[in-house]
Amino acid sequence: MIVIKIGGSAGVDQEAICDDVAALWREGQRQVIVHGGSARTNELAVALGHPPRFVTSPSGYTSRRTDRRTLEIFQMATCGDINKGLVRRLQQRGVNALGLSGMDGRLWVGPRKSTIRVVEAGRQRVIRDDFTGIVAVVNHSLLQNLIALGYLPVLAPPALSLKGEPINVDGDRAAAATAAALRAEQLVILSNVPGLLRDPADATSLLPRVARADLDAAGRHARGRMRIKLLGAQEALDGGVRRVVLADGREAEPLRRALRGVGTVICGEAS
Amino acid sequence: MIVIKIGGSAGVDQEAICDDVAALWREGQRQVIVHGGSARTNELAVALGHPPRFVTSPSGYTSRRTDRRTLEIFQMATCGDINKGLVRRLQQRGVNALGLSGMDGRLWVGPRKSTIRVVEAGRQRVIRDDFTGIVAVVNHSLLQNLIALGYLPVLAPPALSLKGEPINVDGDRAAAATAAALRAEQLVILSNVPGLLRDPADATSLLPRVARADLDAAGRHARGRMRIKLLGAQEALDGGVRRVVLADGREAEPLRRALRGVGTVICGEAS
Repeated sequence: MIVIKIGGSAGVDQEAICDDVAALWREGQRQVIVHGGSARTNELAVALGHPPRFVTSPSGYTSRRTDRRTLEIFQMATCGDINKGLVRRLQQRGVNALGLSGMDGRLWVGPRKSTIRVVEAGRQRVIRDDFTGIVAVVNHSLLQNLIALGYLPVLAPPALSLKGEPINVDGDRAAAATAAALRAEQLVILSNVPGLLRDPADATSLLPRVARADLDAAGRHARGRMRIKLLGAQEALDGGVRRVVLADGREAEPLRRALRGVGTVICGEAS
Repeated sequence: MIVIKIGGSAGVDQEAICDDVAALWREGQRQVIVHGGSARTNELAVALGHPPRFVTSPSGYTSRRTDRRTLEIFQMATCGDINKGLVRRLQQRGVNALGLSGMDGRLWVGPRKSTIRVVEAGRQRVIRDDFTGIVAVVNHSLLQNLIALGYLPVLAPPALSLKGEPINVDGDRAAAATAAALRAEQLVILSNVPGLLRDPADATSLLPRVARADLDAAGRHARGRMRIKLLGAQEALDGGVRRVVLADGREAEPLRRALRGVGTVICGEAS
């Protein structure tokens, strides 16, 4: 089993990724796809006059400010547009894709953050009406049943809070939780960077292999989204996934390249 | 098994309908929900600067002009907003709802109309870039599997064309095809009218019972959407559904009322 996270940034080649997924599908490889919708949400939010805002936590993580209206826009972009676009591309390639959000069938359930602490102009403040959270429980039996019936699940945030509210969850970490729950051999995270870079400004400074024990040290220079990807990688390894590959979704044959180990391969033991 | 079509017009009380669905769920009644998204699509299309257009066929049926951009907007409104809104409402009531579009798992497959013939200012013309079609095959085994696993399916257009394209299909007729494929005992169509009216302008002219043999005659005065609902009712009965109820989704206990026969009950034999 492979779990594939498809990033939504400009340049990530969904057509090429779906070509690879379809080729692996024909070879009998079981796969689950997870995607987010950050870039599309931004576009739609601007078009609808509710432009995106981002907040930074005291520990330095940046995340989307998700008020109720933003959540509605996020759902339209993620579940309505991107998810159905991937399902269409896969169906056109003969793959029986089936799209779900984390709310459907209680696929991804976790606590909503009752408050979030953010740093603004050097000062901390607390926000109470945010709809964000984390995936604590994955309904792996739903996924296993669908896979056994011959479907390829395509999964999107939001998740479902313990009170039945939709919550915005990070796609990379949701993919990690899914990979762990399914005891997947590999988690492949495809985005618009070649992998983990020693110097984020220098694309040639790629770290091709990182042992789990060195992950903290290697990630010291990571910024922004890459910090969250490394957190996801750590969570996947902690959950029993053997290998995490951070790879470039903009190249030809992006998934096949990643599976050959092009990118940053993170694993528990020497590989 | 009951198939429930929830209309999206103003006034249709989704909260009250979900209350009824949850009560029936606790009693063990198996249910499938189908919805459309016409009103929400119109709002979103206006907000995004691509206002809705409608066309009329030579036989007098009105339908949405669905170009590629309209289809994207329709998907966001229907799969992203309304579907996930219903799933949330049901999950909050303890019902393990699971939303799918007709594309997911090839749930609803049928031919796309390669051309549509429309009447404009008294003249016929042919449109070739429209994404509409009909549901010819329902993947009933997917639905039966999900129901057996304890999920309540919540289904939304678009369907999938024979070439793997998303196609806009009528929600009432898709619900009828689903009810027939599942050999449902009843199809309940909840909308913003009390049922079939002898005089569409007079809400007190409700026809409480219509025998299948009288459907053509009774429908002679129907207009607009009601003509398509009657076509759906006919298709459901032809497909083996025992009873179709057209009922008011704006009243208290809308589903329970409909199941008690308040509205227009259409059935093959005397009831």
